[in-house]
Amino acid sequence: MATMVNSNDYVLGKLQQVDALLLAQVDPNHSPFEAALANLIAAGGKRLRPRIALSSGLALGADPLPLLSLATAIEMLHTASLIHDDLVDGSLLRRGIETFNTRWSSAVGVLVGDLAFTRAARLIHNTRSFPVIEMFTQIMHRMVEGEVTQLARVRCISNREDYFRWIDAKTAALFELAAGAPALLSSAGKDTYLAACRFGRGVGMAFQIVDDVLDFTGDVTKLGKPVGNDSRQGIVTLPALIYFENHPDMGGVDALLYSGRINESTLTGLMERIRSSEAINQALETAHDFIRDALEGLAYLPDGPERFNLYLIAQEVVEPNK
Amino acid sequence: MATMVNSNDYVLGKLQQVDALLLAQVDPNHSPFEAALANLIAAGGKRLRPRIALSSGLALGADPLPLLSLATAIEMLHTASLIHDDLVDGSLLRRGIETFNTRWSSAVGVLVGDLAFTRAARLIHNTRSFPVIEMFTQIMHRMVEGEVTQLARVRCISNREDYFRWIDAKTAALFELAAGAPALLSSAGKDTYLAACRFGRGVGMAFQIVDDVLDFTGDVTKLGKPVGNDSRQGIVTLPALIYFENHPDMGGVDALLYSGRINESTLTGLMERIRSSEAINQALETAHDFIRDALEGLAYLPDGPERFNLYLIAQEVVEPNK
Repeated sequence: MATMVNSNDYVLGKLQQVDALLLAQVDPNHSPFEAALANLIAAGGKRLRPRIALSSGLALGADPLPLLSLATAIEMLHTASLIHDDLVDGSLLRRGIETFNTRWSSAVGVLVGDLAFTRAARLIHNTRSFPVIEMFTQIMHRMVEGEVTQLARVRCISNREDYFRWIDAKTAALFELAAGAPALLSSAGKDTYLAACRFGRGVGMAFQIVDDVLDFTGDVTKLGKPVGNDSRQGIVTLPALIYFENHPDMGGVDALLYSGRINESTLTGLMERIRSSEAINQALETAHDFIRDALEGLAYLPDGPERFNLYLIAQEVVEPNK
Repeated sequence: MATMVNSNDYVLGKLQQVDALLLAQVDPNHSPFEAALANLIAAGGKRLRPRIALSSGLALGADPLPLLSLATAIEMLHTASLIHDDLVDGSLLRRGIETFNTRWSSAVGVLVGDLAFTRAARLIHNTRSFPVIEMFTQIMHRMVEGEVTQLARVRCISNREDYFRWIDAKTAALFELAAGAPALLSSAGKDTYLAACRFGRGVGMAFQIVDDVLDFTGDVTKLGKPVGNDSRQGIVTLPALIYFENHPDMGGVDALLYSGRINESTLTGLMERIRSSEAINQALETAHDFIRDALEGLAYLPDGPERFNLYLIAQEVVEPNK
């Protein structure tokens, strides 16, 4: 047990280096926008992605210096994608702070997002590993293509398949990078790499489902963004999909999809019914299914305290309030 | 002379491969946005940047296959930056086609720009050359940082130094990449690399100055965008800077800078005065100075028909209507 604690301490120590390296990428004196970018990074929650990258790298014996660049690049790419997503969604708050598009303009949101993207590219280049740079580029591509597809769909998401495809690109891809890329910095074989990817993808899918459940059940002060944000924007997530599956008499998802056509009190009523329905627990059960799949991947990684760290992270994702 | 023609034919043949590779990155059937991206690429003018990359690579004996990826990546990065710039500037037309932000929304402009960026990253990765990927990342960074700086400045551009710094990041950086990066795919030494960069930067600076002059003197049908676009947006370029230098009694650049405060007829009158003033020729003379500097760099490249191609491109930039 002592070793397990030490392994976690090691990851936490490395995580401070990631934080320092992240903030070193940004000069708050350069412009008020960079100062706000530094704030957004400093406010940034649980650092799940770099923690996964560091733990996976430690479990697989990845080269420590490029691993640090990789973990930092992933968090920077995450930050960049948040900034552009907030602009695309017209979101007002992120981590309790006004978004760039709200505080300034779309123009600022575009360019500061681009700045974060290019700094992520610079960091990933510092790994000096072709396979890592290649995976990073492919994952970035999957994320952006997913967003474009989502925007191009007239009826957005109307079944589980659409939803899973969407959250795969939007969220799970980056978790897959975090868990899988460290294998490319180690002597691990292809099977181990694929198992690490499977762990990351499962955790990422579960993470997004839990996040979507919190959009119904969460507390605005903890979320740092308004509750019911997705539904108000006509974004249909798993709890609503399941609710409509359970209530075929409701006329299907389209009623919520075109939330622009239903008034605020009808929407609030519908959300309240979903919130207090069995759909919430069924959605969480689906998240647990993805965690089970993730843990099947994890079983292929070398046994030890580092692997136990990854197990704890997977548990944390489905029980965020514990 | 026959060899010169053959060298140019070779570049033109390679340029068709660049066009094919560019369009192969985009699937018009995937979404209406990708179809519009394919249109924008197909409509894309003179392909100056890939022509420079191909000619420079040919002159320096660069490895042909990665050179093709590099030339294509540069044009794709150029396309991506145009899409985001149009969003930042709120531009209505590009290459005679409605911009993404006009035809659809800011959200579409952000994401299609991101899509083009990630495809440029994929192409540059295909060069399999660390020095090239590194230079590409640095140049991308210089471009984005320049745009952020420009947006953060309250008074924008009020002297030549600001202006030159701005167009260096906005335009010349990418030309420097086009001319210089092929050296990294050849056995050329550091001095040759730096000379090629100098050529590219000079041509890029001249290109932007001529473009800014055309914003005063040009014809809307040839430009594919409205004349006087920059001034209307309060963007001060070299002709206006020179005009105000020549007319200190006018109260300086600030009068134009805050064009929001002056009415359309005052602005039109001012633009007409600049258009018919000696400032236009003085600005073009400055462009010629940058071309002269570019040609001093060019002199360090191996003599031959390929170098002559680059000389012709430099001439074309300052005499676009010939």
